[in-house]
Amino acid sequence: MSRVGVIGAGHGKFGRRSDATVQELAFEAFRMAMEDAGIEREVLDASVIAAVPEYHKQRSVAGVVQEYLNLNPRPTWLTEVACASGSAAIRTAWMAIQSGLHDVVAVIGCQKMTEMETAEILALMGRVGEVQWESIFGTTFPGYYAMFAQRHMHEFGTTHEQMLAVGVKNHHYGALNPNALFQKEITLEKALESEPVSSPFCVYDCCANADGAACLILANEEKARAISDKVVWLDGVGAATASMSVLRRPNLVGLPSAEEAARRAYQMAGVTARDIKVAEVHDCFTVAEIMAYEDLGFCRKGEGGRYIAERRSYIGGEVAVNVDGGLKSKGHPIGATGVSMAYEIVKQLRGESGKRQVPNAGVGLTHNVGGIGQYTFVHVFKRD
Amino acid sequence: MSRVGVIGAGHGKFGRRSDATVQELAFEAFRMAMEDAGIEREVLDASVIAAVPEYHKQRSVAGVVQEYLNLNPRPTWLTEVACASGSAAIRTAWMAIQSGLHDVVAVIGCQKMTEMETAEILALMGRVGEVQWESIFGTTFPGYYAMFAQRHMHEFGTTHEQMLAVGVKNHHYGALNPNALFQKEITLEKALESEPVSSPFCVYDCCANADGAACLILANEEKARAISDKVVWLDGVGAATASMSVLRRPNLVGLPSAEEAARRAYQMAGVTARDIKVAEVHDCFTVAEIMAYEDLGFCRKGEGGRYIAERRSYIGGEVAVNVDGGLKSKGHPIGATGVSMAYEIVKQLRGESGKRQVPNAGVGLTHNVGGIGQYTFVHVFKRD
Repeated sequence: MSRVGVIGAGHGKFGRRSDATVQELAFEAFRMAMEDAGIEREVLDASVIAAVPEYHKQRSVAGVVQEYLNLNPRPTWLTEVACASGSAAIRTAWMAIQSGLHDVVAVIGCQKMTEMETAEILALMGRVGEVQWESIFGTTFPGYYAMFAQRHMHEFGTTHEQMLAVGVKNHHYGALNPNALFQKEITLEKALESEPVSSPFCVYDCCANADGAACLILANEEKARAISDKVVWLDGVGAATASMSVLRRPNLVGLPSAEEAARRAYQMAGVTARDIKVAEVHDCFTVAEIMAYEDLGFCRKGEGGRYIAERRSYIGGEVAVNVDGGLKSKGHPIGATGVSMAYEIVKQLRGESGKRQVPNAGVGLTHNVGGIGQYTFVHVFKRD
Repeated sequence: MSRVGVIGAGHGKFGRRSDATVQELAFEAFRMAMEDAGIEREVLDASVIAAVPEYHKQRSVAGVVQEYLNLNPRPTWLTEVACASGSAAIRTAWMAIQSGLHDVVAVIGCQKMTEMETAEILALMGRVGEVQWESIFGTTFPGYYAMFAQRHMHEFGTTHEQMLAVGVKNHHYGALNPNALFQKEITLEKALESEPVSSPFCVYDCCANADGAACLILANEEKARAISDKVVWLDGVGAATASMSVLRRPNLVGLPSAEEAARRAYQMAGVTARDIKVAEVHDCFTVAEIMAYEDLGFCRKGEGGRYIAERRSYIGGEVAVNVDGGLKSKGHPIGATGVSMAYEIVKQLRGESGKRQVPNAGVGLTHNVGGIGQYTFVHVFKRD
């Protein structure tokens, strides 16, 4: 079977981007990716846009981005699976290429979050939980993940300090990432003193809303090899779903969709968890990264707290995780996040990550969760 | 190249469905499609959901449908390109199968429109036009299409009576469709007397918002032949885009995206406009069907008014168009519409349309427009 390769990657600054509309954010990342690939628009056959439309005044996001990028009349489509929209877009681009329908496809994840007030966003996000029987009782996203955290503490003795150690690591690396929203280190002491949000979480357990965009250019094997001498191969595109309602999940200490998506992606790419040297995981809340270590098989269930405490997810440890700062320090423009994760893995696998470079990063993955785990997408990337 | 086949199709009642949530509407159509295919869930590998999320209280539509249909942990993704979301979903399902990633995929288009007030829907739809420079000045969907109508009248002498003849035809056939919102004939006289909306349009020029769902089961060629003896092949999946802003279009008498999508679909399927015997086209407003005749090549540009006046789009004419009632009489649950169109073509090509059956309908197409023509998807279906 032939492969799909990443031949270009671009990433704009994440943050409060009152200087740019969503299409301008998209263009910023697109231009960088096209320059990185060294191609002109003529080479492109189609685009896929990832965004969650309801946060924008401008709907029909795919159309407005397509026009601003001067890509008409090429086909476009938008994918939406909450915070995993970017990875779903990459997966449909993989399909488009592998099916023979298109040879070269641009994937653009873009989101403006700051057009709305935080309270309005929280209410809207609550509706991503099961409205009829669950989120109508007032569950918000921090509330949902705080339940995961409480249960993880109860079953495995995981501590809040271990969770905040995730935040400390991610801010450590985010301080080195010029695209990150927060480019500063934090200490465990400072994190523990931050304002409470939803027990056990305080502010430094939670990622921040941000505006931003990222872009990948994907191509079929023949064109990828012809165009680029630094192709990163997308060899596994795993996806899985789980119950919307956390009440119907088998437990609250992990995400069944993440375990299943990882199993599918590993199988497809012919790798195991032990092969992964660098990973971008969905740390929307600190406990989510701890659960990701376990769900992805980096350690056994229940050992995630110790995994971070022992710095096994730092550069130099077993798997370098979120060394771009993660959602926590980089910010979380929901439609862009999955593409942003893939951008970092591509740069790492090409050895272009400077001070944050993971040595010998031959195989990497992205782990992108939608909603409260009703969707997870795990993608595996390799160098030749 | 191997083919992708439709092995099952289901369609619920369109209308004010206060009896059902969006997931219940989805299940209704899904169950019919699965029974039609004669398969159990075990055969399914994935689902694609088409919906425009912002009309629902419940967001994360893919997740809530996936759970209600008992399809976890299979992959799912949602596509959104405004009113063409259903056709985009079918196109990504085609890719998923043709790429070898999945063998059998369910496509479910579903939408609740009646949770909102009509004025709220109009305002929201206005944002599907270009917000920064255009729809901020108050353009609504009827207003946009009225501009197309005025220009068509000006350039070609098309009359309002000819436009309303589209409505008369579509109500004629809709009266025979038990799934249609309006199951009654109208006369040209009655239509002309209906309340004005946006000149030249009156009420009977405009389609109606509705709740509803439709479902297709697609399979790769091997599985399709093994499972079904009435496979309808999806041989062309054309898509194209055009400027969001109508001000930047070359003219206002047709949709460039529709012409380009048709060209791509015909080429892919190896057919021409002359081969098409039955078509479902996007008659959100009566003039849209007239422009579709022209954009699809059923007649030359400017002849669309005469085409309907001479009943060439009736059964027994050159191409039977919208013989399920079209958006006009059937109703327009925006995420469901593209899948509903495909349902009708599948039934027609299988010879199962009863009183509305088009004789010798060997090749059919769907023409599904998103927004004000920034997206068009044209799909070509064939029997062996």
